[in-house]
Amino acid sequence: MKLQISDLEDLARGAAFLGTGGGGDPYIGRLLAQAAIAEFGMPEVVEPEDVPDDAIVFTAAMLGAPTVLIEKAANGDDIDLALKRLSQRTGKTPDYIMPIEIGGLNSMLPILAAARAGLPLINADGMGRAFPEIQMVTFNVYGISPCPASIVDEHLNSVIIEAHDAKQAEDLMRAVAIQMGLSTLVSVYPMTGKDVKAYGVHYTLTLALEIGRHIRQGREKGDPVETLLAYLRTTEYYNKCLVLYDGKVTDIRRETTKGFAVGHCHIDPLDGNGPAMTIQFQNEFLIAKKGEETVTIVPDLICLVDRETAEPITTESLKYGQRVKVLGVSAAAIMRTPESLNVFGPQAFGIDEAFTTIEKLNAI
Amino acid sequence: MKLQISDLEDLARGAAFLGTGGGGDPYIGRLLAQAAIAEFGMPEVVEPEDVPDDAIVFTAAMLGAPTVLIEKAANGDDIDLALKRLSQRTGKTPDYIMPIEIGGLNSMLPILAAARAGLPLINADGMGRAFPEIQMVTFNVYGISPCPASIVDEHLNSVIIEAHDAKQAEDLMRAVAIQMGLSTLVSVYPMTGKDVKAYGVHYTLTLALEIGRHIRQGREKGDPVETLLAYLRTTEYYNKCLVLYDGKVTDIRRETTKGFAVGHCHIDPLDGNGPAMTIQFQNEFLIAKKGEETVTIVPDLICLVDRETAEPITTESLKYGQRVKVLGVSAAAIMRTPESLNVFGPQAFGIDEAFTTIEKLNAI
Repeated sequence: MKLQISDLEDLARGAAFLGTGGGGDPYIGRLLAQAAIAEFGMPEVVEPEDVPDDAIVFTAAMLGAPTVLIEKAANGDDIDLALKRLSQRTGKTPDYIMPIEIGGLNSMLPILAAARAGLPLINADGMGRAFPEIQMVTFNVYGISPCPASIVDEHLNSVIIEAHDAKQAEDLMRAVAIQMGLSTLVSVYPMTGKDVKAYGVHYTLTLALEIGRHIRQGREKGDPVETLLAYLRTTEYYNKCLVLYDGKVTDIRRETTKGFAVGHCHIDPLDGNGPAMTIQFQNEFLIAKKGEETVTIVPDLICLVDRETAEPITTESLKYGQRVKVLGVSAAAIMRTPESLNVFGPQAFGIDEAFTTIEKLNAI
Repeated sequence: MKLQISDLEDLARGAAFLGTGGGGDPYIGRLLAQAAIAEFGMPEVVEPEDVPDDAIVFTAAMLGAPTVLIEKAANGDDIDLALKRLSQRTGKTPDYIMPIEIGGLNSMLPILAAARAGLPLINADGMGRAFPEIQMVTFNVYGISPCPASIVDEHLNSVIIEAHDAKQAEDLMRAVAIQMGLSTLVSVYPMTGKDVKAYGVHYTLTLALEIGRHIRQGREKGDPVETLLAYLRTTEYYNKCLVLYDGKVTDIRRETTKGFAVGHCHIDPLDGNGPAMTIQFQNEFLIAKKGEETVTIVPDLICLVDRETAEPITTESLKYGQRVKVLGVSAAAIMRTPESLNVFGPQAFGIDEAFTTIEKLNAI
């Protein structure tokens, strides 16, 4: 794919949708990416199959609670330093930059990082959505270490972490991120082109861009949600999808705890009849129930959008009285394997319920 | 000086005294050092004036709350890894190992580290006592950075910290240490022989050994506290000293909070007459008051010992009913400069009282 500066608005909207409520608001990320592109030029986007097996690939992301991330922003030097420290520790110079998650702000950060570094960007990520913790990516599921991992704050304090497993790396990074004020830049999962080809979720930059584009085109036609669903049905990963619920937000419980935005929201029918929907979240929406019945569960995607404009709604922008549609969307096949479910299935979030696919839960 | 394996018991006792209640119990450290010396041999001890200006000096220490440190122990591999990671990051191989604090467990750790690394040990440290925080050393006072700083846990997870100032380094190290379970090995303040000569507190291994030796010899004569005081009066740093109080412990408040053992204790006269003594601590004893009157204040040393045997008493071994003598001892001159008082004077511990020397407070 070729990315234009005029694509960034659609890409940001699509990334917000795939953020499933989390991943931070891409708006600031988009502004920062636009500024970086104006200064350094748009990075070339390379398809995963075109990356040489022995190429060195670094990721770039922000780590923190979205409620804090929107208060602060990457200043550029911190991104450069995160890559530099990882390069110093590994003794390797990156050939490519890749997103670790396509959902939310972290779709934009790698564009910014690649533009500043003058490196191409890979059209893939490690989840095809957003997740709250560092170990929750396909690369970890299939044995790639997140370490050495570098983490940098806006004052350019930096930390390199080397842990034995990805969960220990997550715990240490989270402790450092909290101390750093929950607005940090990280570069983790240094890997090779071969790893990206084997374990990445491919073409997700394209998918995010097309999702954002179809929402915009649907608005022009007056049916953004239907236009979006029609597009999703043509995709490789997101083709099982439906409107789970149409209603208004009647209750939100949200707190920033241990570095995460944790809580739940209730949605009632517009006409007041029928069962309510309850959605639980930890940065991202995790499980949606209609009455007592689970209708979508992680790692499948639960996406809230404005019921008129299909604008994606993040957990931090959830408001009482909002009119929303709740969409359920299938995750990529690699995200639903037993190995993957061990790492980011319902149990990983303390939910005592087995994963069942959205197509089975909703007989679609 | 030349250190013998038979000296370690005296050294540990003297280091516990200079720990001023903190620094961890040197007992486990002594056992570990003895085992390392049996396996690797006793390291050569070098006087600071004999270290070449351009020599590379690394420190080795445990970081955590003493109440936790005594539960766990350095396994050797973690010490080696702390030095190795620092070496990798700095690109320098250490020529010497040095204690960062002589008080408590951290007098022994560098012996262990030096024995394992086959390197000589410098007869100096950065405080001539113990302190709870990484920035509270003379090296920081005079502009040496604690970074890069390496920190390792017993599972051999490792972290490298590079912060702009020593307090930020402390905050990040503490956050990591808490996540690591408060039993960590660190190597901080990589420096040169020139730095050690200019800013170190010199000959403190000798001083700790002699303090421990005089307590033991005093016991044989039946007056360990007096023998100890007589020795201290002959030393360069600790020559202003006295028994501040003789009594029994009647109250202890102690909690492990934010990675520190924080609290206070009350001591009443043995005969019940006269004002009580109150001592406040954060890992180390910070201020001793007789009634309302301050009699010793940090960075001067407050040392509790058993009133019969002069065995040093740490904050974690304080017990209700203990019969103790409280000794006040002058700190090294470099520890009392205005620059030093900015970093580890009373205000650094939230004590709203200016530093006054023990000799002025007690007219000695």
